[in-house]
Amino acid sequence: MRETNPNSWEARADAHSFYGFTDLPTIADRGATIVTSGHGPYITDVHGRDYLDANSGLWNMVLGFDNKELAEAAKAQYDTLPGYHAFFGRMSDQAVMLSEKLIEVSPFSDGKVFYTNSGSEANDTLVKMLWFLWGAEGQPQRRKIITRKNAYHGVTAVSASMTGKPYNSVFGLPMDGFLHLTCPHYWREGKDGESEAEFTARMGQELEDMIAREGADTIAAFVAEPVMGAGGVIPPSEGYFQTIQPILQKHGIPLISDEVICGFGRTGSDWGCQSYGFMPDAIISSKVLTAGLFPMGAVILGPELSDRLTRASEAIEEFPHGFTASGHPVGCAIALKAIEMVMSDEIKGNIARLIPQFEAGMARLAEKKNIGEWRGRGLMGALEAVQDKATKTPFPGNLSVSERIANACTDQGLICRPLGQSIVLAPPFILTDEQLAEMFDKLEAALDKVFAEVA
Amino acid sequence: MRETNPNSWEARADAHSFYGFTDLPTIADRGATIVTSGHGPYITDVHGRDYLDANSGLWNMVLGFDNKELAEAAKAQYDTLPGYHAFFGRMSDQAVMLSEKLIEVSPFSDGKVFYTNSGSEANDTLVKMLWFLWGAEGQPQRRKIITRKNAYHGVTAVSASMTGKPYNSVFGLPMDGFLHLTCPHYWREGKDGESEAEFTARMGQELEDMIAREGADTIAAFVAEPVMGAGGVIPPSEGYFQTIQPILQKHGIPLISDEVICGFGRTGSDWGCQSYGFMPDAIISSKVLTAGLFPMGAVILGPELSDRLTRASEAIEEFPHGFTASGHPVGCAIALKAIEMVMSDEIKGNIARLIPQFEAGMARLAEKKNIGEWRGRGLMGALEAVQDKATKTPFPGNLSVSERIANACTDQGLICRPLGQSIVLAPPFILTDEQLAEMFDKLEAALDKVFAEVA
Repeated sequence: MRETNPNSWEARADAHSFYGFTDLPTIADRGATIVTSGHGPYITDVHGRDYLDANSGLWNMVLGFDNKELAEAAKAQYDTLPGYHAFFGRMSDQAVMLSEKLIEVSPFSDGKVFYTNSGSEANDTLVKMLWFLWGAEGQPQRRKIITRKNAYHGVTAVSASMTGKPYNSVFGLPMDGFLHLTCPHYWREGKDGESEAEFTARMGQELEDMIAREGADTIAAFVAEPVMGAGGVIPPSEGYFQTIQPILQKHGIPLISDEVICGFGRTGSDWGCQSYGFMPDAIISSKVLTAGLFPMGAVILGPELSDRLTRASEAIEEFPHGFTASGHPVGCAIALKAIEMVMSDEIKGNIARLIPQFEAGMARLAEKKNIGEWRGRGLMGALEAVQDKATKTPFPGNLSVSERIANACTDQGLICRPLGQSIVLAPPFILTDEQLAEMFDKLEAALDKVFAEVA
Repeated sequence: MRETNPNSWEARADAHSFYGFTDLPTIADRGATIVTSGHGPYITDVHGRDYLDANSGLWNMVLGFDNKELAEAAKAQYDTLPGYHAFFGRMSDQAVMLSEKLIEVSPFSDGKVFYTNSGSEANDTLVKMLWFLWGAEGQPQRRKIITRKNAYHGVTAVSASMTGKPYNSVFGLPMDGFLHLTCPHYWREGKDGESEAEFTARMGQELEDMIAREGADTIAAFVAEPVMGAGGVIPPSEGYFQTIQPILQKHGIPLISDEVICGFGRTGSDWGCQSYGFMPDAIISSKVLTAGLFPMGAVILGPELSDRLTRASEAIEEFPHGFTASGHPVGCAIALKAIEMVMSDEIKGNIARLIPQFEAGMARLAEKKNIGEWRGRGLMGALEAVQDKATKTPFPGNLSVSERIANACTDQGLICRPLGQSIVLAPPFILTDEQLAEMFDKLEAALDKVFAEVA
């Protein structure tokens, strides 16, 4: 039941917030949750209630909500150089050091880095870079971007056009020239009697057909998350990238790995492309890059794209693009510390220790008759609710099953994310065994409650 | 002469930085300037050299490079809640308080706020909001955005399409549906014998003609900076907004004020629209919003657009848009302190005290025979270099006059910005009389040096 006092935090939030990605009936019913502080993987609201955040904020706050070392890195930089840009041949020392570090920890032997303030801006920047590059190399018609249905690449008009979600139709998006292949989700998209290998081959053929239909010389790039995140944690079918990449290479189409969610440990490797054994031409990074303490994105260009773009820029004496806060010294200082910590033996060890327990917990919940499948990789996973397990039939949309499960979790002090008819988990990397058990116990209680209501 | 040591900061910057908005011949010649710290309006590079930054970073660091109160606000929030998002009906207390404050200090009687990480994202978000709104209101064809030549609205593909600068052609931008009117710069665009009032009337007629040609029912909005910033500090001609706004109102076209640069004191009023006596339908804010200490942008919706967008969102139960770091608690905490300080009697008093001295200094330099005009408003100004003052003839482009002036300033420890053939100044709000004198003295020496070389 929501607060009715007009001076309540909930009423104050309603008064002047234009809510985004927020279920407005839930707000009308329960009011917003106003967060004041955090400790470890927990956040605390204005009423003193604690919530275990099983989504690490938005996949990003993997080192918890009160990490002292990260805060100290931020505070030290605020005492030294609290802001600067990276235009006109000036930039902070922190930006120089972070670019060195990013290339060092990337899968690339060499390359260059361009900073933005978000993953959306990084994908938008990537598209502008490719439009610029192909134009400079005499192929200005090479502008189409291929992504997949259910992909999530951001919310600027261009990155929303790359995103393969139906809700973007309310904006009249995607724009022309943004093409979406079938989501490589074997469980949902596989045909009756089709093996996973056959499904993967079909995904490759669909790409071949699209390239033939559109013309290879009209296609600027193929962009993919190694595991789809906001599409509902969807790992690709077996052999997907090994099937896709040779087709792209044959046609000279760059393969870009959007690692906004997968990068820096989430899938159990440093990079999602390493978990799936492919080498992209560039990487899009954000989120864990600063462990959620600062808005930052980065386009990490591998050696070939970096060289080609540098040559094209030198030919016109300037690459006319950049954000005011690109390479902000505080963001860079935080990122340097976050990378050090996320790649430390301690955190990598905890991720490796948690993964089998996470998988076991998901597998156990997936035995319920209203869970169609669990899927995931590393420390990201989803449980897909179904009305009928055998036929994979979803619940009627008006039952809002996943929202009800998420709200039942919230009532117990657990934050999970409803996505379509699935519940998504992406816990912080610092979880203890007790916290992992708490997460699964509360989630199970919520599932049982809601499934009993809708059965 | 640039450093040649491969371990130098300059070489390390070259190795892994993909430079944006940077003159690459200057980098090749001089190397990047690597900034390590700051004090007051000065930055310090790795070689211990100080520079008075007459551009406040990028128009944003108006309270200086070592402001203790701002840093303390950031540090306190890093110790309380160092990050959170604003999705799914959760948000930080800082975001709630900042939205209240922004509506309170805005020209609006009521309204709602949506956060982004930059001005680019704020303009991109505004366009998505309007495409969504017109679609929801049964006019999905109302998608065209009108801006002006020389306008600067950002660098995402959409905000770059709003930007009226020729360099965006290298990306194949602007996209279709982004229309650019004549820049209302009377000195440059006025015809022989045309009075300023006649010029303004012609600007209005051009808008009327464009609306008639395109069809009012295809136009989503008109977006304008009160004073164009990155176009070269161009105030509108006398009566411009009073001529434009009634035309827009007649056709039901919203007027959006892009106050990324003008907002929070730069023009001598709280908002640029107040300096020019018009009331917009929404305001785009960034930069001084956090005094450069954090990446943040905001769409501040006035009461009518706010109500219409709220109704449209409620009809589909969710506005499907938002950035991971929208409403970041540290950014909001910094913004609350920055607004308090920028709107304090102390800072407002210093701005008011500096403006006449700034105008006098610009007017004095404008007497030189190779300065065509000085223009500006409040604490933003530009000096336009010309080969011939009477005919307003520019110098040949290959002389790179403004870049040479800026480099001659840098050699003396003064940072100015070359823009076209003009030199732009936008000093911090904390300048002392001595610092203002230092700025003009060094700039004058640079002007004299370069004009002697090219005369």
